[in-house]
Amino acid sequence: MSEIPEVPETTGRTELSGDREQAVRAAELDAADPLAAVRERFVLDPAPDHASGDADVYLDGNSLGVLPRGVSDRIADVITREWGQLRIRSWNESGWWTAPERIGDKIAPLIGAGPGRVVVGDSTSVNIFKAVIGGVRMAGKGCTEILVDATTFPTDGYIARSAARMTGLAVRPVEPARIADEVTERTALALVNHVDYRTGRLNDLPGITRALHSAGALAVWDLCHSAGALPVGLDAHHVDLAVGCTYKYLNGGPGAPAYLYIRESLQERFESPLPGWNSHAEPFAMDPSYEPAAGILRGRVGTPDILSLLALEAALEAWDGVAIEEVRTKSLALTDFFLECVAAYVPPGRVRSLTPSDHQWRGSQVSLACSPQLAADRQGGTPLAGEVMDELIRRGVVGDFRHPDVLRFGFTPLYTSFADAERAARVLGEVLGALPDVESGAAG
Amino acid sequence: MSEIPEVPETTGRTELSGDREQAVRAAELDAADPLAAVRERFVLDPAPDHASGDADVYLDGNSLGVLPRGVSDRIADVITREWGQLRIRSWNESGWWTAPERIGDKIAPLIGAGPGRVVVGDSTSVNIFKAVIGGVRMAGKGCTEILVDATTFPTDGYIARSAARMTGLAVRPVEPARIADEVTERTALALVNHVDYRTGRLNDLPGITRALHSAGALAVWDLCHSAGALPVGLDAHHVDLAVGCTYKYLNGGPGAPAYLYIRESLQERFESPLPGWNSHAEPFAMDPSYEPAAGILRGRVGTPDILSLLALEAALEAWDGVAIEEVRTKSLALTDFFLECVAAYVPPGRVRSLTPSDHQWRGSQVSLACSPQLAADRQGGTPLAGEVMDELIRRGVVGDFRHPDVLRFGFTPLYTSFADAERAARVLGEVLGALPDVESGAAG
Repeated sequence: MSEIPEVPETTGRTELSGDREQAVRAAELDAADPLAAVRERFVLDPAPDHASGDADVYLDGNSLGVLPRGVSDRIADVITREWGQLRIRSWNESGWWTAPERIGDKIAPLIGAGPGRVVVGDSTSVNIFKAVIGGVRMAGKGCTEILVDATTFPTDGYIARSAARMTGLAVRPVEPARIADEVTERTALALVNHVDYRTGRLNDLPGITRALHSAGALAVWDLCHSAGALPVGLDAHHVDLAVGCTYKYLNGGPGAPAYLYIRESLQERFESPLPGWNSHAEPFAMDPSYEPAAGILRGRVGTPDILSLLALEAALEAWDGVAIEEVRTKSLALTDFFLECVAAYVPPGRVRSLTPSDHQWRGSQVSLACSPQLAADRQGGTPLAGEVMDELIRRGVVGDFRHPDVLRFGFTPLYTSFADAERAARVLGEVLGALPDVESGAAG
Repeated sequence: MSEIPEVPETTGRTELSGDREQAVRAAELDAADPLAAVRERFVLDPAPDHASGDADVYLDGNSLGVLPRGVSDRIADVITREWGQLRIRSWNESGWWTAPERIGDKIAPLIGAGPGRVVVGDSTSVNIFKAVIGGVRMAGKGCTEILVDATTFPTDGYIARSAARMTGLAVRPVEPARIADEVTERTALALVNHVDYRTGRLNDLPGITRALHSAGALAVWDLCHSAGALPVGLDAHHVDLAVGCTYKYLNGGPGAPAYLYIRESLQERFESPLPGWNSHAEPFAMDPSYEPAAGILRGRVGTPDILSLLALEAALEAWDGVAIEEVRTKSLALTDFFLECVAAYVPPGRVRSLTPSDHQWRGSQVSLACSPQLAADRQGGTPLAGEVMDELIRRGVVGDFRHPDVLRFGFTPLYTSFADAERAARVLGEVLGALPDVESGAAG
């Protein structure tokens, strides 16, 4: 961080009327927040090596959600009693065998799905493969192409290309906003991110799904950056297939298993490319010929990963009594307020928001691009935005950085407070305000 | 269990000279066992609901290995400190990101692989898919078929058929012993189980691999029932691809992630059908075009499942200082002794061993088929072998049952004692001895 001069880590907040105004506003918003008490369901202690002893403002829940309180005790019991003492009996007696569909049913209401439409297990990438191959097999015979969100998180594109190679189709990248115009009768399906991981832009799930259906194509949605942050409405909008991870806004833990949604009316036509024994109609018959299970069970593959699944199940208890609609209301209020605070604290011209100001197009993160002039002045090595984020983290504000110039701040309404948003913007203002003037070039 | 009359749960052992002889022999064998102390590394406490308060004889480690002592504390630290306090920092600071290949290197010596040839993650079924598709892509252009072990664990056959469908090949089931005769120049690869899950038969990995190579085909081995129980020698025998689970003899926990082995000289030709972002040469560059990582990393797919991976890593510490050769020596001694005890305790004609008596063909389990006359007398419902196993479990001897007539007993040399083997055979003798005479037909 040699390029960012040292400044006092906390400016005298009460000396600045702008600061006072935002801090007072944050306190008012927190006092009126109906979800404020839900924050107590999460572990927000400071890291053991944290110099100040203060808890961080954690705005990286769009990458790894924080630890919900019940997980630790639950997993201790799973390990010591269910595995350690009951052992093999737990496959039946502790409900291990049915965990993938049971936990799917717990995620379902958060994404607008009825019971029996979601199954948990495998990584997001593996579930994308199941969904794309399964979708292609349900598509019309004359289809020759798969559309992929041109700004997709990379793994979706890689897996879609692999699926296309294995089914003889082509992949065509299309901006989400252009899908309605680009879809043709030759399109088998489109694989689209509900929220763009980089910009936080919310894509039009109902409209794009409708447009795809009008052309006879299927809609396959990646919910990684939307599930748990805003209503998805899979059933209501007749989405065909969807996948998502559980370690971001669902707080399931690092690398927690992903899920697959299959529209009820398509389930009996779904042919998995990964027909493992757990998706068999009678798995313990050990039948050499494959007969898929009915319903969503055919989205299962191999033996489910119990420790991670049950950690996720415990984590989902943090949602008890919480409606996704109130999460959305708070999410928009948080990102609005953060943007206001950034405008108040950060010197003009140093960052530009990539996140749409219109609520209709906004997910639950704010992405700020560092000024291209600042970035362009850099000579090799870590981009300036990476160094800015390092310094924010050092000062207890944890977001993340995406190449080449993006600072990402995720807002998780279950545990993010308005005071967090105010502090994050204030520290960002301090760090960016301490940079050498743009016109003078970077120091060092 | 109405069909099996109640008998005293322990016969007066000292009254029977045969019993005393076997029990004395068990004590001698345990006293001379160089691996006896390794048992202390495992949790072998009785289940909380166990009537007698005695620990079970657990002979189901070929399905789910018992809990190694270090796992509970390690996972508590992963959850509370690494996830709960360090959060996103742990991907680098706690070594999460590199866990798949690091843990692969810890499994490698147990299966005769050098470093950089094994990667952990995903289920066995998913890894079979990677291996079969990857293998077909490396095979000669004129290949038209995949051979699959005719007695395979079902998932291998289901996945091989899916892979064949997606690559335009046919699947031909062949008995492992016939592969050398059946392989042709049109064979892309053979997928074979090293140990048969049902009978415990050990297949000839070196010989079958050589025969496949002579015909220009690749050898893909499923090590689920051999890894951790006997030497595999993947590098030494030039195996091309291999997969295995980690929750049986490796004691990684329920549904712990599986692994993929790729022969070093084939790695740069391996093209994964699941090219997730974790297998990219530069995953954080978020490059829309796919460039596979060098070496075994290209076997990775999506974000690794950290809780399960790190539980496995802690479980592997039970292997410290243990050579797989001494595990094999004890395994054969255990199964020999168990078969001797079965001969001594079980009335003639009630069970027949499906497990080869020749060490060369024996894995680390004993499978006993219940007399077909007994089975044939049954009217519907649970097969007699299933009821026998239920009764064994009620009396504290845990094996498992496979349709229609097989009792399976797995021997895990790290924690199974000769006293366990003697007790299991004795209880089996009590249960089977109490059955009505075969000729008189089953009661009830």
